[in-house]
This record gives sequence, C-alpha cells and structure tokens, in this order.
Amino acid sequence: MQKGEWMYLYHDDQTYFLPYEAGGSFSTHYGTLCFPENLEFGDYIETNKGIRFYVLRPSLADLMMKVKRRTTIIYPKEAGIILLELGIESGSKVIEIGSGSGALTVLLSRIVGNEGKVYSFEKRPEHQEIAIANVKRFGKPDRVEFILKDPVTEGGFGVGEVDGIFVDIPTPWILVPYIWKALRLGGHVGFLSPNIEQVQTTIKRLEESGFVRIRTMEVWTRGIRVKEFLTRPFDRMIGHTGYLFFAQKVKISAKEYVPDYWI
Amino acid sequence: MQKGEWMYLYHDDQTYFLPYEAGGSFSTHYGTLCFPENLEFGDYIETNKGIRFYVLRPSLADLMMKVKRRTTIIYPKEAGIILLELGIESGSKVIEIGSGSGALTVLLSRIVGNEGKVYSFEKRPEHQEIAIANVKRFGKPDRVEFILKDPVTEGGFGVGEVDGIFVDIPTPWILVPYIWKALRLGGHVGFLSPNIEQVQTTIKRLEESGFVRIRTMEVWTRGIRVKEFLTRPFDRMIGHTGYLFFAQKVKISAKEYVPDYWI
Amino acid sequence: MQKGEWMYLYHDDQTYFLPYEAGGSFSTHYGTLCFPENLEFGDYIETNKGIRFYVLRPSLADLMMKVKRRTTIIYPKEAGIILLELGIESGSKVIEIGSGSGALTVLLSRIVGNEGKVYSFEKRPEHQEIAIANVKRFGKPDRVEFILKDPVTEGGFGVGEVDGIFVDIPTPWILVPYIWKALRLGGHVGFLSPNIEQVQTTIKRLEESGFVRIRTMEVWTRGIRVKEFLTRPFDRMIGHTGYLFFAQKVKISAKEYVPDYWI
Amino acid sequence: MQKGEWMYLYHDDQTYFLPYEAGGSFSTHYGTLCFPENLEFGDYIETNKGIRFYVLRPSLADLMMKVKRRTTIIYPKEAGIILLELGIESGSKVIEIGSGSGALTVLLSRIVGNEGKVYSFEKRPEHQEIAIANVKRFGKPDRVEFILKDPVTEGGFGVGEVDGIFVDIPTPWILVPYIWKALRLGGHVGFLSPNIEQVQTTIKRLEESGFVRIRTMEVWTRGIRVKEFLTRPFDRMIGHTGYLFFAQKVKISAKEYVPDYWI
Repeated sequence: MQKGEWMYLYHDDQTYFLPYEAGGSFSTHYGTLCFPENLEFGDYIETNKGIRFYVLRPSLADLMMKVKRRTTIIYPKEAGIILLELGIESGSKVIEIGSGSGALTVLLSRIVGNEGKVYSFEKRPEHQEIAIANVKRFGKPDRVEFILKDPVTEGGFGVGEVDGIFVDIPTPWILVPYIWKALRLGGHVGFLSPNIEQVQTTIKRLEESGFVRIRTMEVWTRGIRVKEFLTRPFDRMIGHTGYLFFAQKVKISAKEYVPDYWI
Repeated sequence: MQKGEWMYLYHDDQTYFLPYEAGGSFSTHYGTLCFPENLEFGDYIETNKGIRFYVLRPSLADLMMKVKRRTTIIYPKEAGIILLELGIESGSKVIEIGSGSGALTVLLSRIVGNEGKVYSFEKRPEHQEIAIANVKRFGKPDRVEFILKDPVTEGGFGVGEVDGIFVDIPTPWILVPYIWKALRLGGHVGFLSPNIEQVQTTIKRLEESGFVRIRTMEVWTRGIRVKEFLTRPFDRMIGHTGYLFFAQKVKISAKEYVPDYWI
Repeated sequence: MQKGEWMYLYHDDQTYFLPYEAGGSFSTHYGTLCFPENLEFGDYIETNKGIRFYVLRPSLADLMMKVKRRTTIIYPKEAGIILLELGIESGSKVIEIGSGSGALTVLLSRIVGNEGKVYSFEKRPEHQEIAIANVKRFGKPDRVEFILKDPVTEGGFGVGEVDGIFVDIPTPWILVPYIWKALRLGGHVGFLSPNIEQVQTTIKRLEESGFVRIRTMEVWTRGIRVKEFLTRPFDRMIGHTGYLFFAQKVKISAKEYVPDYWI
Repeated sequence: MQKGEWMYLYHDDQTYFLPYEAGGSFSTHYGTLCFPENLEFGDYIETNKGIRFYVLRPSLADLMMKVKRRTTIIYPKEAGIILLELGIESGSKVIEIGSGSGALTVLLSRIVGNEGKVYSFEKRPEHQEIAIANVKRFGKPDRVEFILKDPVTEGGFGVGEVDGIFVDIPTPWILVPYIWKALRLGGHVGFLSPNIEQVQTTIKRLEESGFVRIRTMEVWTRGIRVKEFLTRPFDRMIGHTGYLFFAQKVKISAKEYVPDYWI
C-alpha cells in the first residue's frame, strides 16, 4: 500500500477510515493499532489487546459516505440511479450544481474517466473548499473543474453541450432555463429535493420550458442481518432523503410559448 | 442522428424504442410515424393523425431495460448500487457471471471505459448469444470478453486480480472459492438472489472462506405522479426483485481452517 | 353451518367466497363442488375431479375485501390503523362519510358492538344502496344508521358527541367545520386521501379550525412466500392507496380567529 | 374529567401522558403545568412560562404505546392487522400468549366488549404483573383472564373453542398442537416473529398439523410532515418489527399423518 492510501479498517462492530502510513498508529475502542511496513489490502492487523482488524479497500460507496461533510450528502442508493438515469458513463461531460461536500463529485470524477469532464458549480466558497479537499482525497481532481459562481446572477453556466446535469440546490426551479441552454439536445437532467413543493414548482417550470418525459421517484434500501436463526431486517431504516426527478431536453420552436423569465 | 442509432420515441402514455433509419416508418397506437432525413435528438415528429412524439436519447437505465430478454434482468435500482459497492469505475476490471440477457453487461461495458475490461461468463450458449447481441446493440462490445464456461466444472475463471465480481446465478455458493481466487486482495464481490435461503447458504460459505464485511440489503423505488392537485405515488410497485449482498476478500493463512471443497 | 353463512373456499391457488346452501353446487377451475348437509367450517370437500377445497371462516379482513364494489375500498392495512387512531372500540359512537361500498362500515359495525353506533353518511343513493346490501350480507346492520345526505348543503351531520369520525370523500376540507361540531371534545378524526394536495388543503383548514395534533402517514404491507428454499417476498406490492391523516378536536374560544366559512 | 383519567398533554414538539388530578402540577421542559378543577378534554392549559398545552383524549394507539414496558411491544401498525385477520370483534373469545407488557391485551380488552373474553397467558410472573398493571390502567380488566402457565409443560391452554389466538413468543412452533386444540374449527391464529427462521420453523409445523391458508407479511408505516413548502416524509422510519403470519384450523382425519409430538 502506498503512503496516504485510504484504508477501511474493519472489525465486526467497529470500522475506521484513515490513510496508511507505515510506522503510524491509531487508537480504537479495542486498543491501539500499529501499521507495519508493506501492509496490503486483505491483511489483518491486531490491536495491542489482540483484536483483529481487516485492512479493506474502500468501495465507491464508502468514499462517498466518508467525505468530510458540511452539508447533507447524496447517498449511494440515490447516486447509483442518478448515474443510470442521466446516462453518465466513461467519457461523459456532466455538470453538477452545487458541489456541496463533494460526495457526488468524487463519484462522478471516477466514472467519467480521462476522456470525460465534471463541471462542479458552487456559490459558497466555504463549501467549494471542502468539496475540492474531498475530491483530492477520494476522487480524480484532474477530471473536475470547480467553478465558484451563481449561474442565475452571473449569466448561466458558461458551459454547453453537456450530456447530463445534476441539480441539488434548495430552489432548483430558478435554474431551468440555464439547464436548457447547457444541455445537449435529448440530454438528461436530474434533481434531488427533500420537499414535495420543490418538486412541484420545478416540474411545472420544466413542463413549460422545453423538457419532456418528466418522472419522479423515491428510493429506499433496508439492511438485513443474515445470521443463523437470527436472520432479520434491521430495525431502523432511512425513510426519506429526497425525491429524485428527471427530465429530457427537447427543441423549442420560436412559435411556442416562451416564459418571460427565459433568457 | 446516425442510421441505426437507438431512439426513445416518447408520447405521454406511449413510448417506443427503435433504431433510426431515414425514410423508414413505424406504426403506433396513435397512427404512423415517418422518419425524415436529418432527424435529431430533441426533435419531435407527428403521426399521420397529428400526434406528437419526441425523439429522445436513451439513458443507461433505458438501455438496460430495453435489452431483448430471455431471463429476468437486473433493474437500474439494483444496478446502480452494484456499481458503487463493487467500486466499478472507469478503468476497472470486472467479472460478471452469468451473462444472462446482457443487461448488466451493457452497463458495465459503458462504465469501465477503454482502459477497463468486463469478463462475462455464461454456461448456456443460447443465453450468451442473446447477451452478445444486446451488448452489440446497446453497449461497448470491444470492452467485453464473453466466455462460455462453467467455472465449477472447468477449473475456475482463468482470470485473476479483478477489481470486482458480480454473481447472478441460482447457486452462487458453489462459486465462492473461484471468486476468492479471481479477486484482487481487498476486492469486492456482489450477489443478487431472489430467495433468502440462497443468501443464507452463500453467506455461510463466504464467512468460512476468506471474506469479511458481508452485508445484505433490499432496494425499492416507487414512482410518483406530480400533477396539479393530483400528486400521488403510483398505485403499484415492485415489492421484490432480489436480495443484494456484498463481501470483501481477505488473506487466508495456511494455518486457518480450509473447507474441504476448497481448490 | 347455517344456510346463507359465508364460506371462504380455499385451495392453494384458487379461492372462492359464497354463501352455504346444503345441496347446492358450484363450478370451479378444478371441477364442481357439491355442498353436503351438515357442512362445518374446517371441513374439506372435493370437486368431481378430486381436488380438495377447505371450508374456512372468513376473517374481518376477508369480509372487507369481498364486498361488492362500486368504489375503491379501504384496505385492511389502513382500516386497522384507523380503528386504533380513532379509538374505535366496543361501545363507540362513530361517523363515517361517505359510505362508499360499505367495506369500512362492515368492519365498524362489528367492532362497536351492541352498545355502539355507526352513522354512515352518503350523498349518492346508488352507493348507499350497495353499502346497505354489503352490511346486511357481512356486517351488523342493526348497529348502523345509513343517512342519505350531503352535510355541506343540508346543515351538517345532525349527530353530535361522537367518539370518532372517518372521512373518505374527494374534498374532505369542506367538512371541517361540520366535523368539529359533531365530535366530542378531544375526539379523533381520520381521513384517507390519495393526493397530497387534498391532504395539504385539509390540514391547513384543520389547523385554523380547532384541531391539533395533526399527523399524516402512509402504510404498506408486503406478502412473503415461505416455502422450503424458495422463501422470498412477493414480486408485486401496492405502492399507494392513500395518505392517512388524523387530528383531535379542541375548544375554540370566542376571542380566537374564526374563519369566515365557519358555521 | 374524572380523577385518574389519563390525559395526553400536547404541545407541538413535546407531549406528556399522565393521570388527571385537580390541584396537581407537573414539570415540563416549558415550565410547570397546574391542573385546575373541572378540566375537560379539549381544553388547554398554560405553563408558568405561558406555553400552551392541549389536554387530549388518548387513542387506542396511544394507550398501547404508553404502557410501561419490560418487553418489546406490538405496534399499532401490526395490531390493527392482527384484529382484522383474526376476526376479533365485539363478542369474540381470544387467547394471547404471552402477555408481555400487556399492550395488545389493553387493545383486545377494549375490542371484545362485555360479551367477549381475553385469555392472556404468560409464564414469567414478573411480566404478568406488569401486564396486569397496564390493563388496569388503560384497558378493561374485567374482560381479561390472566393465566400464569406454560401450556407446553402444563397440558395446554385448558380453554377451548376460541375465535382467535395470537402468539408472540420466541419459539412459537412448540405451541402448534395446543393452538389446534384450543381454536374452534375454521378459527384463525396469528404470530409475530422477528426472525425469518422462526417463521419458517413454525409454518412447517403448521402445514403438517391441521392448518391451511398460511400467509406471511410485513407492515410498514412512514410519517409525513405536512407544512407549507416543507412537506416531506420523516427521515427515519421503523424498518422491521417482525413478520406477521396467519393460518386457519381445519379438521384432521384419523387417517392422516399425525406428527409424533401431537397430543
């Protein structure tokens, strides 16, 4: 393992997430762990009290969940569907707004590959700073352009022909005309909003502004404990993070109604 | 649009999915559509009865759902989480078994990029044939190696050091030792099984065969109709497709218990 | 079994629901059943093709689900919670509006006992007729007063001091002042509405009209097949019937704001 | 209000549950409440800091949730369905085992009315004591017979021809033959078990012991906050309490297989 590589240290009911450094040590609830030279993923190490921790490779879901947060983040259950509905793949050009804590940026940067590009917009400098730090830590910063800008007051995104756009801001409806301009024809936009009124307001605007095939959904996951004669779902689950909704851009002819807020 | 490019033809309550051919025509419930020269995504065309259909770009979710099927397929709600939990990104090397109808293969081939690779195993030639056709149609066939083989009777996968493995066969537990061999250290394996006994049997074997951090979950999505004064979730939803479960490979020392079915 | 008593005829994948008559017969997909003298619940009878059907006692849930319908009905999953949240028990006085197909009326009439009373309001005679027939068939008609009336245009319910009120009409908010008048102090009202805007409109009115402790919920059930090595949840489930919401009546002082629609 | 009557004291984000006593007082997070003479349900009283609390009538759901607990209790979401599937109504005779903390006993005692009867079995005296106290507090103790007994070691229930039986013990399968004996023909039995293996074991025994129409389900509820421009489901929900399963008793002929554990 390289110095600085992130390890998921795993014991049954306790996990830690930290960067590797040979000779370093770390205190857990089960005693102190010391990290030897030449530690590899798949190895285990023991605390001074003899408790075994496995050294695991973090998944994309782990990286997203472990970002340092200043905002609520997007969960893997929603992030996976966002990729598929927006059609984000190796080589895609994608806008996200806002950067938030950068959890989704980490994911997008790893999916779009070296030929792809992520444009990550944010208007609050203190959030952008965290997002940048998180992408440096867990993502592929070379593939991300961080832009500190409010597209509404500063003339739109200034980027065009992108394959997909993902929006997670409190007032997504104000972005609709800018989204239309930035997307390629037939391109996909997705939104995550916690309140139904945000969904209703945004969808109304999408319908009158050159978007079709608008669809809304919720996603849930429930963990299950599989253990001999004790197999049962977990008692608690997340009941709601937000409504996910998607639409696709179509052409607007000059003769059609153009809302007065249109650019 | 190129000849042969797949279009998602969209009218409110009717959609069609077919390849573009200038001069071609197609019969719908709302009359006949003729496809002009120079049709572009985002355009609309009208049937001879004046009903408008939009020409939309399919998302990854659309491509997965539109494969020709001979088997049950993996839904986007599960596929997204599989990507994130296995850590499949641009450049990944991944095994899937079985190929099934190729819905997941389509997705994986688009995510792994030109530097990545998908090894898709299948033992029934008639399934493999369909999977190959579907990947040619909707995926990136150059990035996929289709292998007609039963790893149990034919000496394992014959591929090693892969980043992730996804298993969707009726008896996943028999593959556990072969999975262990093929995965890189710390690598992730995921399974989808409809019945809880399949999960229980496979997890028991994983626990005794060099895998840790085993976790199981269910995923649901529910569509919501957002329409003025008629906003409500859809009446029907999918209650179950399968249990998703994941594990990570760790080293096994010579002194540890090695099950007798071990290779 | 008495003549006319309702039987739930049960074979693994086929069930029928009909009244008993000695000497009668009935055609099923598995052949003809003849009903002997002295048939008892728990017996089985065989068709002329030798297929066994069990003669079972219907549950309350069965009776509700088997009413002849002209409207959507309330499902057991919601009905059970309605009883508990409204505090309907033996001896309760309860209003329901509208009668619909009488599925809930059947249930309420069986719960309130001989000392209780159900006032079932309906404004469409053709619905009331069906509800009356269903309660005669499956419920306790002596405990129900069916009232053909629109409380909004005809001066309210004309019944007072009831323990609980259940409302299932498309515009529940117009009833709020009449509900307040008819309920005893501290009494509970419940609503079932399919669309979120119905909930929002009604709750706004409740909040300004002498109701507190307003709470809203959804209820789901999912069936599970338990069978050796084939244990799994059912593929399909009901994703939405409606939003259930509840409130409690409190006193309104003369000094407080009284909405102009107030009676 | 009578002395000792239970009040649900309600302020937006704070509720209390206690018996009324004129002249009494109670400390809340918002200051002290004093209870005047002639307090009525629907009144409000204010703390010494001027915060208003409403005096509400508890629902059946409230009574169940407010029992003093020594065990996990049955939630209203399951309890409502239990009533409907077992066919518990005014006049029913019902067995429950075990008494637990008496939450379900409170409910059953209020539903069965003066002509009905609840036989509540429990083998641990310390649990029975709590159940009795809770039923005295919130239920109808005259309608309940509390029986301190283990039916397995002490010769069965000793009660017969009951309409329904509800079972919530860790090893429900051992009771199957005793349940068969105590139920009337065609009668319903219900179970709540947290682990799937308990369900599997019990259902296997039911199938070979004179029960048919066996069905299993899960129930979920999710709360929703309805507030202007902030309408959204609650973040957290209960993911699992247990599996509910039901069956109906049929006759067993002498010629059929009788398991050796049969009485």
